[in-house]
Amino acid sequence: MTQLLIIGGSDAGISAALRARELAPTTSPMIVMADDFPNFSICGLPFFLSGEVTDWRNLAHRTKEDIIHAGIQLLTNHTATTIRPQDKVVTAIDAAGKEKHLTYDRLIIGTGAVSNRPSIPGIDLPGVYFLRWMADSFAVHQHLTERNPRSVVIVGGGYIGLEMADALVLRGLQVTLVEHNPSVLKTVNPILGDMVKGELERHGVAVANGVSITAIQEQGNQLLVSGSHGFKEATDMVLVAVGAKPNTQLAHSAGIEMGFGGAIRVNRKMETSRPDIYAAGDCVETWHRILDQNTYLPLGTTAHKQGRVAGANAVGHSQIFAGSLGTQVVKVFDLAIARTGLRDSEALAVGFDPLTLETDVWDHKGYYPGAHKLRILVTGDRQTGKLLGAQIAGHYQGEVAKRIDIYATALFHGMTVAAVSDLDLSYTPPLGSPWDAVQMAAQAWSKALQSDLACCQSA
Amino acid sequence: MTQLLIIGGSDAGISAALRARELAPTTSPMIVMADDFPNFSICGLPFFLSGEVTDWRNLAHRTKEDIIHAGIQLLTNHTATTIRPQDKVVTAIDAAGKEKHLTYDRLIIGTGAVSNRPSIPGIDLPGVYFLRWMADSFAVHQHLTERNPRSVVIVGGGYIGLEMADALVLRGLQVTLVEHNPSVLKTVNPILGDMVKGELERHGVAVANGVSITAIQEQGNQLLVSGSHGFKEATDMVLVAVGAKPNTQLAHSAGIEMGFGGAIRVNRKMETSRPDIYAAGDCVETWHRILDQNTYLPLGTTAHKQGRVAGANAVGHSQIFAGSLGTQVVKVFDLAIARTGLRDSEALAVGFDPLTLETDVWDHKGYYPGAHKLRILVTGDRQTGKLLGAQIAGHYQGEVAKRIDIYATALFHGMTVAAVSDLDLSYTPPLGSPWDAVQMAAQAWSKALQSDLACCQSA
Repeated sequence: MTQLLIIGGSDAGISAALRARELAPTTSPMIVMADDFPNFSICGLPFFLSGEVTDWRNLAHRTKEDIIHAGIQLLTNHTATTIRPQDKVVTAIDAAGKEKHLTYDRLIIGTGAVSNRPSIPGIDLPGVYFLRWMADSFAVHQHLTERNPRSVVIVGGGYIGLEMADALVLRGLQVTLVEHNPSVLKTVNPILGDMVKGELERHGVAVANGVSITAIQEQGNQLLVSGSHGFKEATDMVLVAVGAKPNTQLAHSAGIEMGFGGAIRVNRKMETSRPDIYAAGDCVETWHRILDQNTYLPLGTTAHKQGRVAGANAVGHSQIFAGSLGTQVVKVFDLAIARTGLRDSEALAVGFDPLTLETDVWDHKGYYPGAHKLRILVTGDRQTGKLLGAQIAGHYQGEVAKRIDIYATALFHGMTVAAVSDLDLSYTPPLGSPWDAVQMAAQAWSKALQSDLACCQSA
Repeated sequence: MTQLLIIGGSDAGISAALRARELAPTTSPMIVMADDFPNFSICGLPFFLSGEVTDWRNLAHRTKEDIIHAGIQLLTNHTATTIRPQDKVVTAIDAAGKEKHLTYDRLIIGTGAVSNRPSIPGIDLPGVYFLRWMADSFAVHQHLTERNPRSVVIVGGGYIGLEMADALVLRGLQVTLVEHNPSVLKTVNPILGDMVKGELERHGVAVANGVSITAIQEQGNQLLVSGSHGFKEATDMVLVAVGAKPNTQLAHSAGIEMGFGGAIRVNRKMETSRPDIYAAGDCVETWHRILDQNTYLPLGTTAHKQGRVAGANAVGHSQIFAGSLGTQVVKVFDLAIARTGLRDSEALAVGFDPLTLETDVWDHKGYYPGAHKLRILVTGDRQTGKLLGAQIAGHYQGEVAKRIDIYATALFHGMTVAAVSDLDLSYTPPLGSPWDAVQMAAQAWSKALQSDLACCQSA
């Protein structure tokens, strides 16, 4: 019986444990984890803080009891401090500093990521928050419920920043969102980022683009946030959401090799540089299916998939991570914004000859009530005609999320843009068109390529 | 310059003409058509009759002016009566019986389908309607607006019957739906058909399953509909929607070979048995990508695709119809029901060893408000693990339509059920799960296969 030890009880770790049990029912994986919240939906934190999820316990994908019932041992509130690969021992300490030594045959590291903390004066002041783990969430929640703030400055216009803007408007706060890029949601083209900005402003969020925060100071009962271009705002709380970086200190000190972006180097079997040690999730680099190389793309979906592969391989199977396409979606108020694959600039950087075309198209037949216009950007390669990526923005009930998934599935199989029209997709006037929106956008791309009238989007 | 003549101004004919113009801009295709309504959305008729589409003109995918502006000649209100392949001449007559002789280099036949008319006494009585063309729709509309009926009996529980039940309830009529099969919507498994029946009943529709209509008689100002098992109902109008058959009389009399189900035989280039004559849409047989043979599957989506291929080939290109998967979706009140690929019985019939598993799964994370349960049936082959088909029923805002399209895209590429979990699909708690519903259902199928605890659905 393989002794399987897993460090980390979030998406990657839990997926790995479940998959190992599924394939090797006699294995009894043990998960050692730093807090007491196994398998919590980190992506759900904004919806707890908005009040939409009334009980934080509902954020658990599975309860602790479910996990134990599935045959997984949990060692909670223990932080792994060292891995000794030569002895196959992991040391962990509890809050009181008491050590435990855990042996393993196979080890899976799923230590996740940590929030980036900009080194600016005042970043550690009370009232300044980050949002990554349950503890962060409880701290923000406590501030919201006990101090009843009326305003917030959110630093960062990425997924978490945008979702928190939505959440805190819903809660009645006056929200200012500061983003140092010229548009919010820099993971999509500026034309979609500007749609997001419009949606934020329509809901009363003040958006400051192109502003870098330089300092946070106490000012009476408030915090004064200062930034470039004369930005100054007094606020009741500050939330900093400027991305995350892989949490690799433990792996690094065990002599495990690092890869792209300082993440743990892994191959597609999720093996690290050390025998019998696997790693998965936000702490590792990720093989990208179109780039055909490793990158750093921490996403919950990917963590689940990598964990599943690591779990299978750790109990003797030989599975391969199929790769990421960077598929992602976010809902901001009534707008959903999604992407998959490469944008123009990313495609250019790896030697493609990309053309990106923007098309506005109805989500379903315009004559049927409730039709919404979707804005679709298709990126394809001029030389081969291959689909490289797509972006969609539109009303969240316009099936934006699952439409990006059609492109993602096409991309997975290396389809050309033209061949997207060959797909036999469903149609009824209330829910689509005889050529679905994704096909109309693909056909528009093909016409643009043909006629050389393409309107290139700079990325 | 190729003289391109097209018979039929609906989906296949218009698609063919547009594609021909796109690829050969000097061509000036002529479309001869029996009515005055080119490029109308036949699938939209129920929504005109419900009152949701207030002006029938909005049902046009394109206006007559758009079509002419695209360089297409329209000869409306002319019915093609003969094709003489040896002379390359088509004869058409107008309402007054005046003949026109039209020559061609290449001909595309897109004559569509005609409603099945059960041979029962009273089927031709005033107040008994069919629904396929604009003229049918105007007749029904006139009855609704001028005679103000309070009740209707709909014969047939397929797509049109169900959509018309929804439409006429919306209009305030008391609706009785009669279906001779044991469940409505026989194109999906009975367990989903029963969900549809429940949705109909929840909205006040009386559903009579297992009843065959035997006669319609006049009874005062009403019609008396009689059927098997003692069915008898007096009603203000009758709508018969029991399917359609290919409209092939013209082609047949020109000596063109017929194929599956009496539809015009075509190859994947949409060529008929006669040189320079192509055919597309509801009048032809359809190559099925999983069956790997021809079948009869009249769908608007397919008509568009086949028309596009025929149009390209008629102007000298060499394109191949990629095949149908029978992907389809219908919305009945708040429920969307979708399918793609093969059901158990269809798979068995062609030699697969199918297993079908039913899974109920949330459309998005249950903790986020507005989550709906989807019922997903996955059919795969026990021997090869290949995905053969899928069916989904659930709230129409649960992205049912585009989720079936993810399966359709996977099917298109011959994926295994297990590989569906490798797809990099989008996730945010309001719109999905880290493993999307389509992946959870696929994983459940794999587990069922493994553990041999499969709960087979009879088809």
